[in-house]
Amino acid sequence: MEDISITFLRDSEIDGEILIEGLPGVGQVGKLVADHLIDELDAEKIAEVHSIFFPPQVVIDGDGVAHLAKNEFYRYHDGTRGIIFLVGDFQSNSPEGHYLLSDAYLNAVEQMGVTRIYTLGGYGVGHMLDSIRVLGSVNNIDLKESVEELGVNFPEESDGGGIIGASGLLLGLSAQRGMEGICLMGETSGYLVDPLSASVVLEILCKLIGVDVSSAKLHERAGEMEPLVNHIRKMESAPTDEELSYIG
Amino acid sequence: MEDISITFLRDSEIDGEILIEGLPGVGQVGKLVADHLIDELDAEKIAEVHSIFFPPQVVIDGDGVAHLAKNEFYRYHDGTRGIIFLVGDFQSNSPEGHYLLSDAYLNAVEQMGVTRIYTLGGYGVGHMLDSIRVLGSVNNIDLKESVEELGVNFPEESDGGGIIGASGLLLGLSAQRGMEGICLMGETSGYLVDPLSASVVLEILCKLIGVDVSSAKLHERAGEMEPLVNHIRKMESAPTDEELSYIG
Amino acid sequence: MEDISITFLRDSEIDGEILIEGLPGVGQVGKLVADHLIDELDAEKIAEVHSIFFPPQVVIDGDGVAHLAKNEFYRYHDGTRGIIFLVGDFQSNSPEGHYLLSDAYLNAVEQMGVTRIYTLGGYGVGHMLDSIRVLGSVNNIDLKESVEELGVNFPEESDGGGIIGASGLLLGLSAQRGMEGICLMGETSGYLVDPLSASVVLEILCKLIGVDVSSAKLHERAGEMEPLVNHIRKMESAPTDEELSYIG
Amino acid sequence: MEDISITFLRDSEIDGEILIEGLPGVGQVGKLVADHLIDELDAEKIAEVHSIFFPPQVVIDGDGVAHLAKNEFYRYHDGTRGIIFLVGDFQSNSPEGHYLLSDAYLNAVEQMGVTRIYTLGGYGVGHMLDSIRVLGSVNNIDLKESVEELGVNFPEESDGGGIIGASGLLLGLSAQRGMEGICLMGETSGYLVDPLSASVVLEILCKLIGVDVSSAKLHERAGEMEPLVNHIRKMESAPTDEELSYIG
Repeated sequence: MEDISITFLRDSEIDGEILIEGLPGVGQVGKLVADHLIDELDAEKIAEVHSIFFPPQVVIDGDGVAHLAKNEFYRYHDGTRGIIFLVGDFQSNSPEGHYLLSDAYLNAVEQMGVTRIYTLGGYGVGHMLDSIRVLGSVNNIDLKESVEELGVNFPEESDGGGIIGASGLLLGLSAQRGMEGICLMGETSGYLVDPLSASVVLEILCKLIGVDVSSAKLHERAGEMEPLVNHIRKMESAPTDEELSYIG
Repeated sequence: MEDISITFLRDSEIDGEILIEGLPGVGQVGKLVADHLIDELDAEKIAEVHSIFFPPQVVIDGDGVAHLAKNEFYRYHDGTRGIIFLVGDFQSNSPEGHYLLSDAYLNAVEQMGVTRIYTLGGYGVGHMLDSIRVLGSVNNIDLKESVEELGVNFPEESDGGGIIGASGLLLGLSAQRGMEGICLMGETSGYLVDPLSASVVLEILCKLIGVDVSSAKLHERAGEMEPLVNHIRKMESAPTDEELSYIG
Repeated sequence: MEDISITFLRDSEIDGEILIEGLPGVGQVGKLVADHLIDELDAEKIAEVHSIFFPPQVVIDGDGVAHLAKNEFYRYHDGTRGIIFLVGDFQSNSPEGHYLLSDAYLNAVEQMGVTRIYTLGGYGVGHMLDSIRVLGSVNNIDLKESVEELGVNFPEESDGGGIIGASGLLLGLSAQRGMEGICLMGETSGYLVDPLSASVVLEILCKLIGVDVSSAKLHERAGEMEPLVNHIRKMESAPTDEELSYIG
Repeated sequence: MEDISITFLRDSEIDGEILIEGLPGVGQVGKLVADHLIDELDAEKIAEVHSIFFPPQVVIDGDGVAHLAKNEFYRYHDGTRGIIFLVGDFQSNSPEGHYLLSDAYLNAVEQMGVTRIYTLGGYGVGHMLDSIRVLGSVNNIDLKESVEELGVNFPEESDGGGIIGASGLLLGLSAQRGMEGICLMGETSGYLVDPLSASVVLEILCKLIGVDVSSAKLHERAGEMEPLVNHIRKMESAPTDEELSYIG
């Protein structure tokens, strides 16, 4: 078997200008945004990715049918241009696999004509948030202004800050191919799946790609999680034992 | 040396319709079922598998003779068709090795003519059980009804449940080759080797493959373990210190 | 660079009948025996092994000179036949590397004409010993009697006992090449480098290969360690707190 | 993609006699020295190294632009000869990668004509230091005297001392190519980035390569860290609870 195989589900040529990546990560923010867009736009599944670098397992679907661990490409065409989505439940098992998978993804989308890549993720801050900022990075300084204008914050890290996994590598490796890359990360506690953070990222992304979709379902899901979120907030704001001893 | 080598022990062509996999796993349930069938049917050893993906060791047999870590294929022919067994003491050391070994197993049995695969395992529940259910999965929805009719439960997992290792991968990878795959998992505590769970899986499997073997030896072994099982049950049902403090 | 390279230090053909392996392991027993034999027989270094599977480091010698991690082959010729030694400070970093290194060692010695392999090690028992047994294993049942006659014990393990690393793999992999393999393991606490256990293994090995060397230096080194050994013995025989509470 | 790629930033042939390696390590001593020399000498960046053996991530620069994990070669020419620098934020993820990266670095600089290599690092001692020694190692005994004359100490380790990672492997692997290699390690606590230790290593290195640069900036940075260093010293010299109980 090949280390990585991408199986296309139709014969006709696939063209696309834009790739949107939303693989699993902190708060599942990127995954929530990409899955939501695929649902709302009714994007078509065009390919499956299997790899020895994924965990060695099958996943069971709602019918009890087992499917090999995989990632998937979807495509939506708005009449003018194609938008490709890269989604799934897995990232690589190994550092080397991360590189080789990202490279294989880029080989596939470069052939489709993709010239711009959006990678999506969460940025864990370690506490509950009152307002959610979207942090960004680009693989080319010329892209920064247009993203900054939409209110995205660019962390100025002098020393060593980084983006790990596919969201980072797709940015770095695509630059070597002359592709433009933008990463959007929604701030999130890191404790929970975070549809609220996803909705904020979605809003920015929609402006950047000129697509209009409702974020109602993400807000709905965020609403369902509110009791849990409030519970954690209360625990955070309670004084710790040590603080109490000063009071006492 | 090759990464994986399968050495056949006879020259003549080997044909088989069915593969039954019982490699080590939770409660050794799959291994117990497959080893028991090989014993009862007096199946013939036909091949040995060696691999750099197995642990780097030899095992010592009852005579003090060292043998390289290996898995084995056995075969039983009932006059009409061949049944191939895949058994042994080892699974892969690495995620990549799991894929490559499962692929090599499928290469071998596809050449024999195998079109259906049964993978066997245990399903750990974390407590002692009063009655043992058999859980199932298939790699093709058309297989489900015939398995369900025998009382096998199909977990409907909406999110991420999976089967790890050879039992899962053989199902997933064989689907890509057009082979039918059925996984049977006996519920088990996960604390002990579980011949009782194995006997329940055996019963279902025998109906599925139309073979009649006694499960007496598995029940015998389960009987020998009863004192230990009862001891654990007592510990489970004893109130914990915390519960006692409420009583006290 | 090659994954594994064996560099011979002289051009002339090297012949040998016997390989003695003494790489690092429990109590350094195997290493002590092989290094001692090389010293006493004044064996000649004939080759160095380098590999990406060794730890990524250099070792510093007494002059402050750095040398790449390596294993070494030595050779002693007694007029009739050559004895090859495999020694060094390293085993593989990875399971796969263990297999590939052992295979490379066998390629080298098979070309020299080696037909019998002795692998040496320690067998950790977890407590200080009053008398030291030598445990053995063979890769061919026909070899057992001659080894047993010298007082070597063959553990009869019905289920899963094994020998890990080069000492095990050389036995298992050489059987596939038709070579004879004998493993000798000196019982040892596993807490300390154990020259006494090495001296007992040496005695058996010398009888097996028909070589006569003094074990004085091993006993000398064991003598130097006696105060430490006695200290640990005292700690072992002291009643534990729990035992004391019964007495009290 | 290639496992390791070295991309040169100019077409003309690059020549150099000396390689100075300063990759990350204990106290960042080697990195501080090499980065400082590049700054002071205004060395030119000549190549970038990317590899699947680096961590799978991008780093974000001060502008918010993402760059693939990489190491870099710089070059300074003093009119007579070229000095090549190997610097960056990463070492390999895996033992095998350490070997393969070091081998690739040597391939590159051997083609430039490099015949001597200086590898730089820190030597962690586990406590704060009043005076800092420079420890050295060489890959050829003939190099020792000239280094010792400058006050460098050569540890005489009889048993197993080593240098791990690129600083060690470049020494060991370059010897096989007939290159001269010298490793300089500044003693350092191991707790902190240590510009003071770097300044001491710098002084020795400058004498060895006949280059004159100021260490003012390293001393400045060391000065900024003094309050933190003094705080740790106080904690070290405070009696521990156990010692206090004897006094009490």
